[in-house]
Amino acid sequence: MESLLNQSRAMCPFLKRTSPAALRSLSMATKPSTGPRGGTMSNLQVIARRCPVMSKALAVQSSRLASKNFTTAAAGIGATSKFKTFEKVSRCPLHTTAGNSASVEVAGTYEKSSRPNPHVPLEAGKAATRKPDVSFAGPHPRAPAAPKFDYEAFYQNELEKKHKDKSYRYFNNINRLAKEFPRAHMAATEEKVTVWCSNDYLGMGRNRQVLKSMHETLENYGAGAGGTRNISGHNKHAVQLEGTLAKLHHKEAALVFSSCYVANDATLATLGSKLPDCVILSDSLNHASMIQGIRHSGAKKMVFKHNDMVDLETKLASLPADVPKIIAFESVYSMCGSIAPIEKICDLADKYGAITFLDEVHAVGMYGPHGAGVAEHLDYDIYVSQDTANPLSTKGTIMDRIDIITGTLGKAYGCVGGYIAGSSKLVDTIRSLAPGFIFTTSLPPAVMAGANAAIEYQSEYRRDRTLQQLHTMAVKDAFKEIDIPVIPNPSHIVPLLVGDAELAKQASDMLLENHGIYVQAINYPTVPRGEERLRITPTPGHTKQYRDELVQAVNSVWNELGLKRTSEWKAQGGFVGVGVEGAEQQNMPIWEDAQLGLMENESVEDAVNRELKEHALEEQASLAKAVQALRTGGAVNTTTSAGFASVGTPVGVAA
Amino acid sequence: MESLLNQSRAMCPFLKRTSPAALRSLSMATKPSTGPRGGTMSNLQVIARRCPVMSKALAVQSSRLASKNFTTAAAGIGATSKFKTFEKVSRCPLHTTAGNSASVEVAGTYEKSSRPNPHVPLEAGKAATRKPDVSFAGPHPRAPAAPKFDYEAFYQNELEKKHKDKSYRYFNNINRLAKEFPRAHMAATEEKVTVWCSNDYLGMGRNRQVLKSMHETLENYGAGAGGTRNISGHNKHAVQLEGTLAKLHHKEAALVFSSCYVANDATLATLGSKLPDCVILSDSLNHASMIQGIRHSGAKKMVFKHNDMVDLETKLASLPADVPKIIAFESVYSMCGSIAPIEKICDLADKYGAITFLDEVHAVGMYGPHGAGVAEHLDYDIYVSQDTANPLSTKGTIMDRIDIITGTLGKAYGCVGGYIAGSSKLVDTIRSLAPGFIFTTSLPPAVMAGANAAIEYQSEYRRDRTLQQLHTMAVKDAFKEIDIPVIPNPSHIVPLLVGDAELAKQASDMLLENHGIYVQAINYPTVPRGEERLRITPTPGHTKQYRDELVQAVNSVWNELGLKRTSEWKAQGGFVGVGVEGAEQQNMPIWEDAQLGLMENESVEDAVNRELKEHALEEQASLAKAVQALRTGGAVNTTTSAGFASVGTPVGVAA
Repeated sequence: MESLLNQSRAMCPFLKRTSPAALRSLSMATKPSTGPRGGTMSNLQVIARRCPVMSKALAVQSSRLASKNFTTAAAGIGATSKFKTFEKVSRCPLHTTAGNSASVEVAGTYEKSSRPNPHVPLEAGKAATRKPDVSFAGPHPRAPAAPKFDYEAFYQNELEKKHKDKSYRYFNNINRLAKEFPRAHMAATEEKVTVWCSNDYLGMGRNRQVLKSMHETLENYGAGAGGTRNISGHNKHAVQLEGTLAKLHHKEAALVFSSCYVANDATLATLGSKLPDCVILSDSLNHASMIQGIRHSGAKKMVFKHNDMVDLETKLASLPADVPKIIAFESVYSMCGSIAPIEKICDLADKYGAITFLDEVHAVGMYGPHGAGVAEHLDYDIYVSQDTANPLSTKGTIMDRIDIITGTLGKAYGCVGGYIAGSSKLVDTIRSLAPGFIFTTSLPPAVMAGANAAIEYQSEYRRDRTLQQLHTMAVKDAFKEIDIPVIPNPSHIVPLLVGDAELAKQASDMLLENHGIYVQAINYPTVPRGEERLRITPTPGHTKQYRDELVQAVNSVWNELGLKRTSEWKAQGGFVGVGVEGAEQQNMPIWEDAQLGLMENESVEDAVNRELKEHALEEQASLAKAVQALRTGGAVNTTTSAGFASVGTPVGVAA
Repeated sequence: MESLLNQSRAMCPFLKRTSPAALRSLSMATKPSTGPRGGTMSNLQVIARRCPVMSKALAVQSSRLASKNFTTAAAGIGATSKFKTFEKVSRCPLHTTAGNSASVEVAGTYEKSSRPNPHVPLEAGKAATRKPDVSFAGPHPRAPAAPKFDYEAFYQNELEKKHKDKSYRYFNNINRLAKEFPRAHMAATEEKVTVWCSNDYLGMGRNRQVLKSMHETLENYGAGAGGTRNISGHNKHAVQLEGTLAKLHHKEAALVFSSCYVANDATLATLGSKLPDCVILSDSLNHASMIQGIRHSGAKKMVFKHNDMVDLETKLASLPADVPKIIAFESVYSMCGSIAPIEKICDLADKYGAITFLDEVHAVGMYGPHGAGVAEHLDYDIYVSQDTANPLSTKGTIMDRIDIITGTLGKAYGCVGGYIAGSSKLVDTIRSLAPGFIFTTSLPPAVMAGANAAIEYQSEYRRDRTLQQLHTMAVKDAFKEIDIPVIPNPSHIVPLLVGDAELAKQASDMLLENHGIYVQAINYPTVPRGEERLRITPTPGHTKQYRDELVQAVNSVWNELGLKRTSEWKAQGGFVGVGVEGAEQQNMPIWEDAQLGLMENESVEDAVNRELKEHALEEQASLAKAVQALRTGGAVNTTTSAGFASVGTPVGVAA
């Protein structure tokens, strides 16, 4: 086929310079035909008529088709079916099911399509709703006699495939309790469990300042935005949130979307389709939203091996200098916890004239002195200095060098929604061109206000994320001690390798049913087959008691199911970093001891206790302040997220 | 080009049976090459190697390329650039800017890429974050000397195009005040305006029951869901909301998405790509979300003329009976207010074995005895009877015959989010396969609870939507009297034809600045160029005083700008229904007088007054009940949305 295309290319100048994406787009876009039978024709057909060779072929085909009852109005390149051409079928109206194993399903379709219509118009006012449609006065062909497609059987078959390969998903009913974080109840309110796999990494979903801001906004500005950003859905909450995000990332502008899935999809699809001949270089472990955005752009995609700079450079070097290129990657890869070599990617981008598109979804709120993500964290001292009287210049820092940062408001910031940040012109271009931004209702004012409060809180207060990191270290250490296989990584993710879809689900079910611990099994398509895992995410609220319960429960489940321990993976030569010599040394935590405030020779346990004690003191002070304010009739304004280390009653609007 | 493809088809059995979409997908998907230079090769190349003709051609090409410095790893069909092939550029490393008018912009790029990196690692803890990357030990080619692409100049150019054709959008800062609906404040809180273009059609965004449910859920379950539906983001709020939606539409199941943009995009993209050889028949006025979904599916698309059943049938009849087909359309087209002939589309779908995909985004909450949309409304009496002791069978009703209904929680239901409803198997298939559903954070519990409250409220209480319809009639009548061109339609949308992008924006600006009335101008790409309009959406809260202000203001703006009146459009032969003989008679309101409770010979004005009086009485009773409940310490539970006709203080959690 390729050779034929190449032969064709050699002969046809149009084909030679037109990309498959452009061809496809031309064959999809239609305009009203000027032909005698009306209907539409594809833009490709319009162009084809101008070609001296093709116009003749089309004329022949057209006269051949004219002898048939019904012509395919939008024929052309798109009309070729994978299994049979339309032309062939219209030649054989009497379809036979002989030898067709799907005959039962076909009968089902017959039943549906021949279903009697029992709808009997009632007297009152029926006449008006059943007005004859004046436009409906054209030809009324008879229904085709051939069997119709059986949609329900098709769905059934798709679902059976999921069941067979164990990738069918059963959702667990988990109701996370704001006042008992990290506890939740199941379908029955009395059935409580500890959640160990939420992406509400810092418990901001129950932070008093976030909730207070949301309650107030809900009360003053209502439940929803009431329109798209262009039509009555733009407001001070959007302005403020986008301002806060731009400031957080030290960029000129930011733009908020329904989710970061939509932000990634819309931004990559728009840039990739608009930049002339754009090539997108994509890390092989990129999130589905980026993969979709790249696919939707129709741009050329080159996948480079995960975090492999040699592979990336080889690919960049193979491209012409003046062709626009986007390097799309993540800072923290959520399912394995690996972190991208961001600075090296910036170097390569500069060298080859590419722009960088960095997804910080699992890092915002979690890394950096202000929670701006890994890019900020890599220049920790420069960004820390921004709060002092003599701030260092941020020009040329890694975060400054990234062209497009995307993030979420739905994980560490505890709400919902996503965003991009970058230069004013870039953001304005996406704002002006991306359908996924333009044609959708804005986030509710209360959600934007809550997210704004969360970002501002985390940019001022570092203790939630340092405590989260200390808890992560403690959990990883505890698992290491009992030979449970944690996939080594420098981030806050604790992935336990299982390596089998069914066993991973069983382990998750046993933890939930026998131990009251909720850790979701991660199977295909979220991770590759064979790399199935349990993904644990500690939070500041997962104190020692919860950790001990978890470690004991996991140990018991590993025994019961006979799951492989680290030493067993090692004996097999190691897998995805587990049992691999030197893997841990190469994956030292990105939060350094000094940044976490770990004192010299202090154990993680001691540091956690110290942190928790300080947490509690801060909370006590905050509560006292709140009570004082209530007594004197002033506004209640707590300054900590509170509650992780104490049983103090949260305060706020509706306390 | 088409003839060449046809010639190729005649020779190559693979090309003959493979669709362009499949070819493209094959050329995009890559796998690690087993070749000596590693990298990736497309699946198309893998297949090509099995072909006796193509494998030879590939071998020749490969040896030719081996003499170059860098090969394009993912060469093949996808590598052909529209403007120059990569091959050609790598032959000419010394690119010259002579005759290139973009040289200034190119200089800008140079500046960026040669920017010095002033980042100086500081002492404390810097070493660890600057670990040498062991994997970064491959070839280090020199940076290409040729000019690089100027991204900022590209953005600038895109924005200038928008400015030039007047489609650049300026967002208005509109803060809709829950307690003063339909009033809002601008950037300055004291600057108040009346909003006449929100999609919060029924004012449910400030409904006490909705807000109460949201406040409580926020307090108990926090700000965000904390994960995807599969990973800790599934909860009782999702279960309840999807149950309520399935019940509303009399379907087996429903599925909630971030927005209806995502619901439409994800559902059509998934079905269109999974159903073998699927053809999607799409109304020419379909919303951007459906257009994107169809594009993303890669399926063959046939656009039929807006609401034209002859064109639709001609297209359906041209397709083989057993090919799966989806007819995608809307009930209420939001920018012109037209309504689809739903029953006739169902008839055609049955006849030709297609399934129906109906977007009821602008109709849910607004039509039907329970607010399920136009499909329910068309069988008003049957669905009304569901509340009685002897309900009529809904089997075979129009809503029953629709296979997939999609709707929003962000317009008449006042919150945010979207959904689909259909058979269990269909919904389970989308749930299991659609990346836009799988890989995104769930809606916040409070949003789902609020939406659920809104749907249940509107399914029991009809007065909001009847009052909305009466107000719509009154507004349309008032404009008709003074010759203002309303595009005729049978729905609740009041589109005023302007016909020019700049004038539409000017009219909108003048209404806002001189009259304190916010009506957004609707320009391209939301409507075709030349059909620019002001789109007015009355609500139950837009009482006579607001209406009088609006009509007077519009009249004055029409005078000042010299905009065409209906009679002028008529003199020109009419346009988009304005000034077209018989257009109004063909567009009688779908809500009939009897359904609205309009008494014989009663004027709209009288009916509105009667409705408002009854509204007020209900509210009074509800307030009394609430006060009583507060006094006795019971729960506050108002039963009306209240407040449109009175100045009564709203009651609820935070009153």
